[in-house]
Amino acid sequence: MRAEIVAVGTELLLGQIVDTNSTWIAEHLASAGIDCLFQTRVGDNLERIVEVLEVALGRSDAVVVCGGLGPTQDDITREAIATVMGVPLRRDPALLAAVEAVFAARGRQMAPINAKQADLPVGASPIRQRIGTAPGLVCPVGAKVVYALPGVPDELREMVERAVLPDLLARSGERAVIVSRTLRTWGTSESGLAEIVAPRLEALDRAGPGAATIAFLASGIEGIKLRLTVKAETAAAAAAVLDAEEAEVRALVGDAVFGVDDETMEHAVGELLVDRRLSFAVAESFTGGLIASRVVALPGASRWFRGGVVAYASDVKHAVLGVPEGPVVTSAAAVAMAEGVRRLLGADVGLATTGVAGPDPQEGHAPGTGFAGIALPGAVGEAVALRLAGSRERIRQIGTISALDELRRRLLARA
Amino acid sequence: MRAEIVAVGTELLLGQIVDTNSTWIAEHLASAGIDCLFQTRVGDNLERIVEVLEVALGRSDAVVVCGGLGPTQDDITREAIATVMGVPLRRDPALLAAVEAVFAARGRQMAPINAKQADLPVGASPIRQRIGTAPGLVCPVGAKVVYALPGVPDELREMVERAVLPDLLARSGERAVIVSRTLRTWGTSESGLAEIVAPRLEALDRAGPGAATIAFLASGIEGIKLRLTVKAETAAAAAAVLDAEEAEVRALVGDAVFGVDDETMEHAVGELLVDRRLSFAVAESFTGGLIASRVVALPGASRWFRGGVVAYASDVKHAVLGVPEGPVVTSAAAVAMAEGVRRLLGADVGLATTGVAGPDPQEGHAPGTGFAGIALPGAVGEAVALRLAGSRERIRQIGTISALDELRRRLLARA
Repeated sequence: MRAEIVAVGTELLLGQIVDTNSTWIAEHLASAGIDCLFQTRVGDNLERIVEVLEVALGRSDAVVVCGGLGPTQDDITREAIATVMGVPLRRDPALLAAVEAVFAARGRQMAPINAKQADLPVGASPIRQRIGTAPGLVCPVGAKVVYALPGVPDELREMVERAVLPDLLARSGERAVIVSRTLRTWGTSESGLAEIVAPRLEALDRAGPGAATIAFLASGIEGIKLRLTVKAETAAAAAAVLDAEEAEVRALVGDAVFGVDDETMEHAVGELLVDRRLSFAVAESFTGGLIASRVVALPGASRWFRGGVVAYASDVKHAVLGVPEGPVVTSAAAVAMAEGVRRLLGADVGLATTGVAGPDPQEGHAPGTGFAGIALPGAVGEAVALRLAGSRERIRQIGTISALDELRRRLLARA
Repeated sequence: MRAEIVAVGTELLLGQIVDTNSTWIAEHLASAGIDCLFQTRVGDNLERIVEVLEVALGRSDAVVVCGGLGPTQDDITREAIATVMGVPLRRDPALLAAVEAVFAARGRQMAPINAKQADLPVGASPIRQRIGTAPGLVCPVGAKVVYALPGVPDELREMVERAVLPDLLARSGERAVIVSRTLRTWGTSESGLAEIVAPRLEALDRAGPGAATIAFLASGIEGIKLRLTVKAETAAAAAAVLDAEEAEVRALVGDAVFGVDDETMEHAVGELLVDRRLSFAVAESFTGGLIASRVVALPGASRWFRGGVVAYASDVKHAVLGVPEGPVVTSAAAVAMAEGVRRLLGADVGLATTGVAGPDPQEGHAPGTGFAGIALPGAVGEAVALRLAGSRERIRQIGTISALDELRRRLLARA
């Protein structure tokens, strides 16, 4: 089974947006064991989309097309696929009703222009939308297939996982599965991790086929990921190998691992707080709501998150959080903020950030200076200097995850 | 003159890296007035690179290939181009000396494997390296041309600007530039905008060459963008056409336009607050710090942003913000939160959000129910029902920008 990807959109050819859709699809095809040997980008031009689809179908078994399914005049992917199939478009009454229902649910009347999103080439079947309005398409072309997906990343990803990958795997009859598991770490450099994990890498080299492989992915504000990958006959067999390998790696890396796969740092903190039956509040200066917004992104955060104060102006720190008058980019201010927000919001645990995100210095400190304050039940408040560098945005992001990591390590230490 | 781009590298096909090189080259080709109608990615495979180059040369006058010029076995772009040209490779003594000199300058002996970087197809000429080791190539194929560039972004960009673009422009005799300007809108659907702008689209269709074109880009939580693009002889002429076209479009679309190019909604709100000399505070429930964190991301936000309260637990709304006891997913609670945070943090303007992000209902309301509260100086607090749908994350993001937009429109209305 050989697939390829075609991204449609003049904005791609003009370099106005980066084609992350193709990258995401390619990664997921690879993980599913489906070869992807070509990717093409083409503009909103019927003749050229048709040409690209014909070239792609000439050399691959399946083509995943993204973009060009919207309601406007320049959305012509449906027409191009119908041309390649040699069939007309037909309007599907059930799809039309579904598109109208999306507008109705938003309290709007559907403009007539949107009706074309209910068109599909004769012989094609729709992939139902769960997020936006335009359905996807599964279009047989002889023994081959073209999938058409909307260019909106959320919509595209949901359809790839729910519909395209299962259909491709069913068509390919592929028996081997390639499964990866990612251990997410924070607080150790890439070279440091490489040294720690080196004995395991050597053991795996000696073990040969069937053993896991380990890749290091430096992921910026998401930390450094260790990706364990194995190819096996069944998902269960792969999981068994990955379980054993994860245990080996964790034995070496220890508490630097904060999560697996999609588990975030705030997820790890939340699990620990729930386990220890503690509620949480946060006071933020230079992170400015980033910690709170990451926490609230977790479904179920209401079990442990009470709220936060974004104390951006210095006098808000003094008046609302009870930070003593004086400089605020200090470890003492961080502790006072953590204790103040814990008290104000009636939480068991308080976390605080204060620092300089830049671009200008503050209180004589260069951008990158920052402190986390931590107030735990039955303990004196504590501050930690954070190691921050880079742009304003990066300093705020690194400050957010670093402060949460400091709290995580202290919660781990409480039985 | 029609050019296209080929990016070479198996890591692109596996989705391990995003192809930002093609995007960068595309943007610079467009700015130089050179049409780029296709982009292709292919792996480190001789047969397939040759196939892609032949397809590209069949439909374009020039092909820019990036990647595959390094020293290792999988760097085979030189061989592929030589195959397409029907010529052998030859080792160039001057190039070899230059590669050796790079190593010498770093205090290293050149490993023999690097010598292949001094190879070039007979008939090709080198593009000298100024940063790394591998030279680029200019390879005539009949009346057409293939440029080969290293995949390292810095090296590639330097060669495109110094050698490729001037050579392409000389070949094309082209004088034109293509310039775009993006108007960012919120609050009107894509189809609604299309209908509003339709008279302008028709006028531009009639106007012919030299007029601007308008494209719609649905950008999810960033709203819908209207991209105006013009081809003109000089940057100044292009800017004049865009100025006139922007005025025409704004006359139709009105206040739905909140920013130009990279200007965000929070930037627009900040400009209005500074202009009207008003300070700002925000109380957030379901948006949970997203509004504050977007505001603090702006350098200079301290001129107008005092801070915020993330009132996630209901009793925090009552105790800290003075929201009357009772249900909190209501317009009355939104108003009380806006007035409460304005009072607590000593700000002129208060904005608040309360609602249900899901996945579970709250107070009998389905996810997507939400209100913005707005407290302006000298006015009674006001609430607006927000139209939200989708995932928890999407509801929070849409709620953030919608609440800011409601504030923006009311600030606009204050002289």
